[in-house]
Amino acid sequence: MLIDGKPYRSIWREPDGDAVRVIDQTLLPHAFETTLLRTPADAARAITTMQVRGAPLIGATAAYGLAFAMREDPSDGNLARASAALLATRPTAVNLRWALERMQSVLQPLGAQARAAAAFTEAELLCEEDVATNAAIGRHGLSLIEAAASLAPGRPVRILTHCNAGWLATVDWGTALAPIYMAHDRGLPLHVWVDETRPRNQGAALTAWELGRHGVPHALIVDNAGGHLMQHGRVDLCLVGADRVTRQGDVANKIGTYLKALAAHDNGVPFYVALPSSTIDWRITDGLTEIPIEERAEAEVLEVAGRMADGGGQAMRVRIAPPETPAANFAFDVTPARLIGGLITERGVCPASASALATLFPDLALPA
Amino acid sequence: MLIDGKPYRSIWREPDGDAVRVIDQTLLPHAFETTLLRTPADAARAITTMQVRGAPLIGATAAYGLAFAMREDPSDGNLARASAALLATRPTAVNLRWALERMQSVLQPLGAQARAAAAFTEAELLCEEDVATNAAIGRHGLSLIEAAASLAPGRPVRILTHCNAGWLATVDWGTALAPIYMAHDRGLPLHVWVDETRPRNQGAALTAWELGRHGVPHALIVDNAGGHLMQHGRVDLCLVGADRVTRQGDVANKIGTYLKALAAHDNGVPFYVALPSSTIDWRITDGLTEIPIEERAEAEVLEVAGRMADGGGQAMRVRIAPPETPAANFAFDVTPARLIGGLITERGVCPASASALATLFPDLALPA
Repeated sequence: MLIDGKPYRSIWREPDGDAVRVIDQTLLPHAFETTLLRTPADAARAITTMQVRGAPLIGATAAYGLAFAMREDPSDGNLARASAALLATRPTAVNLRWALERMQSVLQPLGAQARAAAAFTEAELLCEEDVATNAAIGRHGLSLIEAAASLAPGRPVRILTHCNAGWLATVDWGTALAPIYMAHDRGLPLHVWVDETRPRNQGAALTAWELGRHGVPHALIVDNAGGHLMQHGRVDLCLVGADRVTRQGDVANKIGTYLKALAAHDNGVPFYVALPSSTIDWRITDGLTEIPIEERAEAEVLEVAGRMADGGGQAMRVRIAPPETPAANFAFDVTPARLIGGLITERGVCPASASALATLFPDLALPA
Repeated sequence: MLIDGKPYRSIWREPDGDAVRVIDQTLLPHAFETTLLRTPADAARAITTMQVRGAPLIGATAAYGLAFAMREDPSDGNLARASAALLATRPTAVNLRWALERMQSVLQPLGAQARAAAAFTEAELLCEEDVATNAAIGRHGLSLIEAAASLAPGRPVRILTHCNAGWLATVDWGTALAPIYMAHDRGLPLHVWVDETRPRNQGAALTAWELGRHGVPHALIVDNAGGHLMQHGRVDLCLVGADRVTRQGDVANKIGTYLKALAAHDNGVPFYVALPSSTIDWRITDGLTEIPIEERAEAEVLEVAGRMADGGGQAMRVRIAPPETPAANFAFDVTPARLIGGLITERGVCPASASALATLFPDLALPA
C-alpha cells in the first residue's frame, strides 16, 4: 500500500537477488528503516525479534529463510535442520508451518543442486500469492462494508480493529485492513477505531501508522474502550485478523480479541475475522485446548516503547510499574467460533463452522 | 494500609488543623510525595488533575474543599458557589455530589459564624466513616474470598481486579481491595491479577504499588489478558470498584470493566463490585443512558507516563503513536446489572437489582 503516495510492500527481493529487505517494524512508527536479510539466521532473528510479524509475513520471511539455507547447503539434512529452526521461531501462527511445509514439498523431490534456485522462486511465488489472496479477501470483505454503508447513509462506516492485520502483517494489502483499503480507495467514507493493542501497541505503532500514511480516517483508542463504543452504537462492524484458525472456526488472534468479540456479540455488532486459508490449521478442532499460546517476556508489559513526548523526541522505553512488580504476558487468546459472525477468506465469506469451512475448502479440509 | 510497614491514609488533616495533606497520586509509583491543600481551589485542582482520584477519596477531598471555602467566606452565596465549583471537577463519580450535599445539609441550617468549624468537623467525620464503611465492605467481601478458598484447597485464591479500588481510592482500606487486604492479613493465600488499566495505568501505577508495599502477591497483566485467563480457569473471582451505581445495580467504573464482566459471565467466574452506599445514585435507573461518561484529553491515550527503563530512570512521558494520529478517550464504561454476580456494600452482599438494593437500603432508596 501507499506510504505518502509511494507504493510499498513489507518484504521484497533486492535487485541483485541475493537478499531480501524488510521494514523493521520494531522501529515504527517513530522511524522508517529497512533491514537486509541474507542468511537463515537473519530470517529467524527477524521473526523472533518481531522486526517482521503478522502470520502471513512470518510465513513469507520463513520461506526466504529456507531459500537462504538452501543456498548455503542444499542437503536433505540442512533442509530438515533449517526448517526446524525456522519453525521454532514463533509458536502460535500456523502460516509459518504452512509455508515451510510448502517449501519442503517443492524442494524435497529435487536434487540438491536445483534446490536453491527453486527455493527462491517458490518463496517469491508464495509472496505473490499472498498479495493476490489478500486482494481477494479485500474484495469479499468490501461487500460487508458496502452492506454496512447501505444501513448508514450519509455517515462513515465505523469499523473497529484490533492489533495490526494490515499490509505490514502480510506482503501487501493486509487481511482485516484489505477491505478497508479497498473501500477507502473507492471513496466509501470510513472511520476506523484502532485498538492500541497492549502490550506491544501494534495498533498505535503499526495500524495507526499504516492508515495515516494511506490517508484512511481513524482514531486511536485504548483496548478497554471498544465495549463502551459498541454499547453506544458507535461501531458498525469489527474486523480483525487471525494467527491460527481451527477446522471448526475458533480463532487465535492477538490477546484481547476475545474480549472484543464478547462485546460485539453482546451488542449485536457483526464481528468478522479475515484470513487466508493458510491460517487454517485443519488438524485441530478446539482452539482453546489445542492452540499453544505464546508467553513472552514480562518486560513487554512492564515497559512501554515510545518517543519522548516533550523535548528531544528520541525513542526510548519507560517502565510503568514499581521496580519489583512481576508481570505475566500472554500474546494471543482464542475467540470461540460461536462469537464470530463470519470468516472472510480468499474464496469468500463463510460462517465460522466446520461444515462451512469444509464446503468452502474441500481440497484442503481433512476428513473429520 | 501499610507502606513498607508504616500505616498511611490517602488524606489526613495536618497537625495545625489548617490544611490537609494528600498523596500526589500522579507521581506514583515512581515518587512518593505529598501535597498540602489549604484552599477550595487547591482541593478542586487536586481532583481535576487527579492528584486524588477514586470516588470515595474525591468525595472526602471535596468535603475539605468546602470546609476551606467556609473558612474564607461562610456566606450562603459562597456555600452555593464553592459547592458548584467542586461539583464540576469530575462528572461521573457520584460520591462527589453525595459528599457536597451532605456537607450542605449540615452547614445550611447553621449561622455563618459556626460554619467553618462545623465543616471541618463534618469533613473529618466523613473520612472516618469512609474508613469504617470500607472496613465493613472488607469484612463482607472476605466471606466471598473464604468461600472461593474452600473450593480451592492448597492453592492461592486468584482474584482479578481492574483500575485502582484500593486504599488510595478511598481514605483507607479501599473498596475492591479491602476484602483482599483482610484476607491477606489473616494469612489466606492470594494471588491478584492486576489489570494495568490504560490509559492512565492506575493498575500498574497504584494497585501494583499498593499491593507490593503491603506485601500481597500479585502480577501485572495488560487489559487484554483477563479473558484469556478466565477461559483457562485461572481466575476464581473478579473484584472491582465503582464510580456510580444506579438504583437497579448498573455500574459505571473505569473503562474496560464491562469487557471483564462479559468475560467473567462467559466463563462462569463470579464478578463482584465493591462500593459504599454513597456511590449509589438512587435517582437513576439505566446506567447506559443516564450516567454521563467523562471524556478526557487525547494525550492520555497517545502518551504513556513512566520512568526511563534504561539509564537514568527519570520520570517522563513517551508518545506511542505517529505524530498526526488522533485519539478518543472515554474514562468509564457501564456494566449492566445482568453481568454482575453481586454488590459488596457496607451492609452486606446483595444481588445487583433494584429490589435487593431497596431491601438493603430502605432508608436511602427513593420510591420507585
